[in-house]
Amino acid sequence: MKVSVFRKAQFNAAHRLHNPKWDDETNRRIFGKCNLPNYHGHNYVLEVKLTGNVDPETGYVMDLGILKKIIDEEVIEPFDHRNLNEDTAEFRDLNPSAENIATVIYHKLRKRIAHEFEVGVRLFETERNFVEINI
Amino acid sequence: MKVSVFRKAQFNAAHRLHNPKWDDETNRRIFGKCNLPNYHGHNYVLEVKLTGNVDPETGYVMDLGILKKIIDEEVIEPFDHRNLNEDTAEFRDLNPSAENIATVIYHKLRKRIAHEFEVGVRLFETERNFVEINI
Amino acid sequence: MKVSVFRKAQFNAAHRLHNPKWDDETNRRIFGKCNLPNYHGHNYVLEVKLTGNVDPETGYVMDLGILKKIIDEEVIEPFDHRNLNEDTAEFRDLNPSAENIATVIYHKLRKRIAHEFEVGVRLFETERNFVEINI
Amino acid sequence: MKVSVFRKAQFNAAHRLHNPKWDDETNRRIFGKCNLPNYHGHNYVLEVKLTGNVDPETGYVMDLGILKKIIDEEVIEPFDHRNLNEDTAEFRDLNPSAENIATVIYHKLRKRIAHEFEVGVRLFETERNFVEINI
Amino acid sequence: MKVSVFRKAQFNAAHRLHNPKWDDETNRRIFGKCNLPNYHGHNYVLEVKLTGNVDPETGYVMDLGILKKIIDEEVIEPFDHRNLNEDTAEFRDLNPSAENIATVIYHKLRKRIAHEFEVGVRLFETERNFVEINI
Amino acid sequence: MKVSVFRKAQFNAAHRLHNPKWDDETNRRIFGKCNLPNYHGHNYVLEVKLTGNVDPETGYVMDLGILKKIIDEEVIEPFDHRNLNEDTAEFRDLNPSAENIATVIYHKLRKRIAHEFEVGVRLFETERNFVEINI
Repeated sequence: MKVSVFRKAQFNAAHRLHNPKWDDETNRRIFGKCNLPNYHGHNYVLEVKLTGNVDPETGYVMDLGILKKIIDEEVIEPFDHRNLNEDTAEFRDLNPSAENIATVIYHKLRKRIAHEFEVGVRLFETERNFVEINI
Repeated sequence: MKVSVFRKAQFNAAHRLHNPKWDDETNRRIFGKCNLPNYHGHNYVLEVKLTGNVDPETGYVMDLGILKKIIDEEVIEPFDHRNLNEDTAEFRDLNPSAENIATVIYHKLRKRIAHEFEVGVRLFETERNFVEINI
Repeated sequence: MKVSVFRKAQFNAAHRLHNPKWDDETNRRIFGKCNLPNYHGHNYVLEVKLTGNVDPETGYVMDLGILKKIIDEEVIEPFDHRNLNEDTAEFRDLNPSAENIATVIYHKLRKRIAHEFEVGVRLFETERNFVEINI
Repeated sequence: MKVSVFRKAQFNAAHRLHNPKWDDETNRRIFGKCNLPNYHGHNYVLEVKLTGNVDPETGYVMDLGILKKIIDEEVIEPFDHRNLNEDTAEFRDLNPSAENIATVIYHKLRKRIAHEFEVGVRLFETERNFVEINI
Repeated sequence: MKVSVFRKAQFNAAHRLHNPKWDDETNRRIFGKCNLPNYHGHNYVLEVKLTGNVDPETGYVMDLGILKKIIDEEVIEPFDHRNLNEDTAEFRDLNPSAENIATVIYHKLRKRIAHEFEVGVRLFETERNFVEINI
Repeated sequence: MKVSVFRKAQFNAAHRLHNPKWDDETNRRIFGKCNLPNYHGHNYVLEVKLTGNVDPETGYVMDLGILKKIIDEEVIEPFDHRNLNEDTAEFRDLNPSAENIATVIYHKLRKRIAHEFEVGVRLFETERNFVEINI
């Protein structure tokens, strides 16, 4: 029987939605206030989900302290209190929509977590707008 | 890689559970206080989930502003501050249980959203009682 | 040193805002959708606050089980799953605005609680609209 | 069309993580503060999910009052205000990790619920750490 | 008997803490990651509190729709999706700490609200860090 | 103008309500399930409130990082993952009711915080039961 374990974390970042291939008017029409030039920001809430077997010695799918450390290294340290467009290599040429941020986080975590586990990511941009990746 | 996006909304409505084919005593026994004749009400919280591919131009599965507009037109405008039993065509002959309300909302949204997207609906009647449709 | 203790409860009720001294158009202009004739409803969340001294024998200001029982008898039993306008004596001639509901609840609780305690009431009509009485 | 219904409940319990086959130092290294000898505790929040068809007579997948009664009997009554390690037969020889508690709850509920329904369990140990079983 | 009414709103903004009278090292030592040069951001949650008498005609202290409109004009329109340091006159020469943002909001609202009402402001920068003004 | 700043924290602890001057039957009658001998537990959520003037140099009432450090040292380190009755000097002879825990925390924090600030404490034992000290 597979069990999923979840760990929640938060990072506070600035971002702006912008497609450099479009002119300003198209960017403003498609992205609205999210395209304003000087950035805005969010308290991004991240839920990471690991699915696997329960280790009979520990009763754990994975020690959530270890998962917390991986999330801290891959997500919180590089993204927290940063400007995603300006300060991170990942979003230099990738629009930091919630979908793209979640996808980047998914791949960063996936390569740190053993393949016996499935990985899922839910990312809240606000309480009303959020995205999820489950593979 | 498929990504799901979610948009949350709320509507405040009155309703009453009642099966007109049953006598009053059966209705009261099955539905309890939910059958009381003069209605009660809820702050219904709705989460709509769309699953699809991320558009590389926008970084969006779907612009959540467009999804919000569809939810407003199909759900909030007709149901908010209404009596579901008395004021809506959908629940004239259908018992407005959370399951049935979610099913009606699912079908209303499904026909407004392109078929390349999967649609899911979660509806909270209270913080402790909620329902979900995922197809 | 005074300590306040709080107990949270919920009731689900229908209501409608209406002033019988006004014509329909004035009612609609002032109360908007809250005036619609067939009622709407809310999950009302109530927080009751008692302030007093800590009893050195129990470590309690008041046993919250006793406070829960008073709230159940005075608020939950008469208001839960009711239509406030139609089913309750208190709002037959009093508009069931959140302010008035909180005031009625305050007086009902105040007369059940010993005068050595201060009583406060906070009532959430929605997560975004709420009222408070502190005397 | 299948619909899922959810019921949320809470129990407050003490526990301690410990593997009797390991020495004290290994227990402390693997379980950290969760291994401290005199127990600590949590407000465990449980979400139970049933998936099935909607009964056209009631509009219910299952009456959530019946589900609440089953949860009360199987989970709240035996676990609430208990020490899971000391007071319950289930965790006498099973480490009460969130994964194992959820698994025990899943099996207790599964045997009380008709096989036409799928059963899922989500258990929050804290707001940041939670587990889920979906079969 | 005075009653308080509350209206909750949200705005998403970028900011950076910086005192131009200090050198870079002092700014970094005092403000830590909040001083990083390219801004970060938050979902600021605002609760506005008005205290006054209940109007016997409406049952309202103030129509929360009117309060919402004032909050939209004074806070949401100018601050939402903005960079507080770069895009607003108020924080050109004032460090946008939560305390200072709340104070600015308090004064903006105070001058729009009749003096018979007391005004209070609570501002959440994150779920764990928030500030309040009650006069 | 005084501003209040708040910092939220959490600790997970076991406890039991018991008055050693009473016989077992009285303890059970007064404290109910909270008196069960092997302890139960809670995720205690603590909100600490400081009220003071805003420092014009920093825009802070107090750096919340400093307040967090004080809370960690005085509350989280000694109480988290502990059995309050067994593992702490404060509750060896004091019943660990929410009121008494909040009072102990208030005094521990009060002696670490400069007297120009007012200190308040709110402690949630569960989401429905909480206490507050404001002096």
